[in-house]
Amino acid sequence: MGDLVLVNRSLTGRRVWVTGGLGFIGSNLALRLLELGAEVTIVDPCVEGCGGNPANLGPHLARCRIISRDIADAEDFAAELAAADVVFNLAGEISHARSQREPMRDLELNTIAQLRFLQVLTRVRPGVRIIYAGTRQVYGRARSLPVNEDHPIRPTDFNGVHKRAAENYHLMLTRMGLLDAVVLRLTNTYGPRLSLDAPGQGFLSVFLKRALLGERIEVFGDGSQLRDPVHVDDVTDAFIRAALAESPPERVFNVGGPEALSLKEIARLTALAAGPTVNITCRQFPADHLAFDIGSYQADTTRIRTLLGWIPRIGFAAGIRATLKWFEEHLAAR
Amino acid sequence: MGDLVLVNRSLTGRRVWVTGGLGFIGSNLALRLLELGAEVTIVDPCVEGCGGNPANLGPHLARCRIISRDIADAEDFAAELAAADVVFNLAGEISHARSQREPMRDLELNTIAQLRFLQVLTRVRPGVRIIYAGTRQVYGRARSLPVNEDHPIRPTDFNGVHKRAAENYHLMLTRMGLLDAVVLRLTNTYGPRLSLDAPGQGFLSVFLKRALLGERIEVFGDGSQLRDPVHVDDVTDAFIRAALAESPPERVFNVGGPEALSLKEIARLTALAAGPTVNITCRQFPADHLAFDIGSYQADTTRIRTLLGWIPRIGFAAGIRATLKWFEEHLAAR
Repeated sequence: MGDLVLVNRSLTGRRVWVTGGLGFIGSNLALRLLELGAEVTIVDPCVEGCGGNPANLGPHLARCRIISRDIADAEDFAAELAAADVVFNLAGEISHARSQREPMRDLELNTIAQLRFLQVLTRVRPGVRIIYAGTRQVYGRARSLPVNEDHPIRPTDFNGVHKRAAENYHLMLTRMGLLDAVVLRLTNTYGPRLSLDAPGQGFLSVFLKRALLGERIEVFGDGSQLRDPVHVDDVTDAFIRAALAESPPERVFNVGGPEALSLKEIARLTALAAGPTVNITCRQFPADHLAFDIGSYQADTTRIRTLLGWIPRIGFAAGIRATLKWFEEHLAAR
Repeated sequence: MGDLVLVNRSLTGRRVWVTGGLGFIGSNLALRLLELGAEVTIVDPCVEGCGGNPANLGPHLARCRIISRDIADAEDFAAELAAADVVFNLAGEISHARSQREPMRDLELNTIAQLRFLQVLTRVRPGVRIIYAGTRQVYGRARSLPVNEDHPIRPTDFNGVHKRAAENYHLMLTRMGLLDAVVLRLTNTYGPRLSLDAPGQGFLSVFLKRALLGERIEVFGDGSQLRDPVHVDDVTDAFIRAALAESPPERVFNVGGPEALSLKEIARLTALAAGPTVNITCRQFPADHLAFDIGSYQADTTRIRTLLGWIPRIGFAAGIRATLKWFEEHLAAR
């Protein structure tokens, strides 16, 4: 509770920007920032397939300033951007599968647009704290578990290559004194407002949708692969801690869930939360997914625990139950 | 000598492509490939500032097929590309300073164009051996010397970020079985055909030009920084070994010179080779260069020595003498 008071005090009245703020994680973060009393500006043109949806903010939409523009067009809102106190930079293409089919689209959304945005930002608001939503996909197949931030960067798909280039922009500009960036490498994130319709949002989106429909959940492969799903409330907490940390000595942090579970176990817990009608089967990996599959993954979160005082508080069994409940209550309204 | 015979046998009559083949390193490589009896196709539109110059091939220009197109337009020569046996991929922007002033240009030349090229190449010639000209700039400031290939990637300029993204394309597509790539991370390279006119070609180009003009050589800073300059003949040898190696177990190799010398010593040896009229002075680092300066650098070349049998044979003192002599003989004709 002490932490929350501190956070509240620090962001109250501050002008925070959330790029991709109508998407899954972005909207959860924006809502949390409103709770904390921040003045929230969202940049999100709801690019098809990226998960942006004004309904994610529900009745709170009107409490945010919404700029329905691509971050690549930052020149057009440069004057407003010059007043930002903190930038949460979550805009981007998120589908690994689609990045393989349309690498140029992924390059545009994840690298070219970021360069254009950061060129404007460093000009109008040099040295601003910015928190970039990176991905554990940059590591590729883990050499061993858990994976810490010094693991070699060996992305298995275009999405990982392009998100890594955007990471490098943030870190290089920070070394040059033009930004004050923190990069969070997120693992599979779930929770309220996860996009159930956009294809390629990851297996948690698929599992959740099947569970809500009372349908069978299919697991690719033998289901033994490990993942460390993290609840979006824990992720937004990590973003806020990263925003408030004073000159952290490290600028890249893994964000992973509290436990590593097999895909089969994740499916089982999801089905259990959904009720007795949901079954699980294993099926062969589709070839197009197998090509960029990373095998098992578990983040080593020692660094963020130590330097930012963050710990993931929500276990998967409880988190997925609460998520299903949220969707059951809100799905009709969406 | 045994090595050379093997190389000769292996590339004779083979259809090799050299992107950026009218530039400094590309043209030296193309000439060596002609000597070895290869059928050489060059893709080089001589983008302003990238060092491409048909005069680099001199009387041998007509022995190559020249495609004066950007690699980004590979769709237009896809049918010819489908017949490539080996691709030497050297096209790109090379100026670190310019990448800072015009990051979008650097992104276009070093990343976007590479993606377009590789999308066509992997479609028409999947699995082809390709050797990509990377840069030691991706390491940024060295943690300690010498720097091996596992050093963290922390580029200090946009050029490093974008060249790293292109590296990642090659390596990722190799992991997916769509390419058979080798990446060479080159240190400062010098020798015949080094561009003396294009700005931002590095300090060796500037030193050499001053020496040829009999002017004073200026060293930035106190001159104590280390570099490991490598002669272009050694670099072309590395490219050819990389092309001929069968399934190397590693795909990234440092290419560095035989010795680490201070900038002052490099200037002194250059002046010495030029004659008694050339003096040396130290001056303050220009602010725009200091921002992306990497401090001292020396490559650890253990991996390429061990796996590809490559060693740099040309010491700097002899190499710079021979280079000056070459320019004195050829400058009038250029």
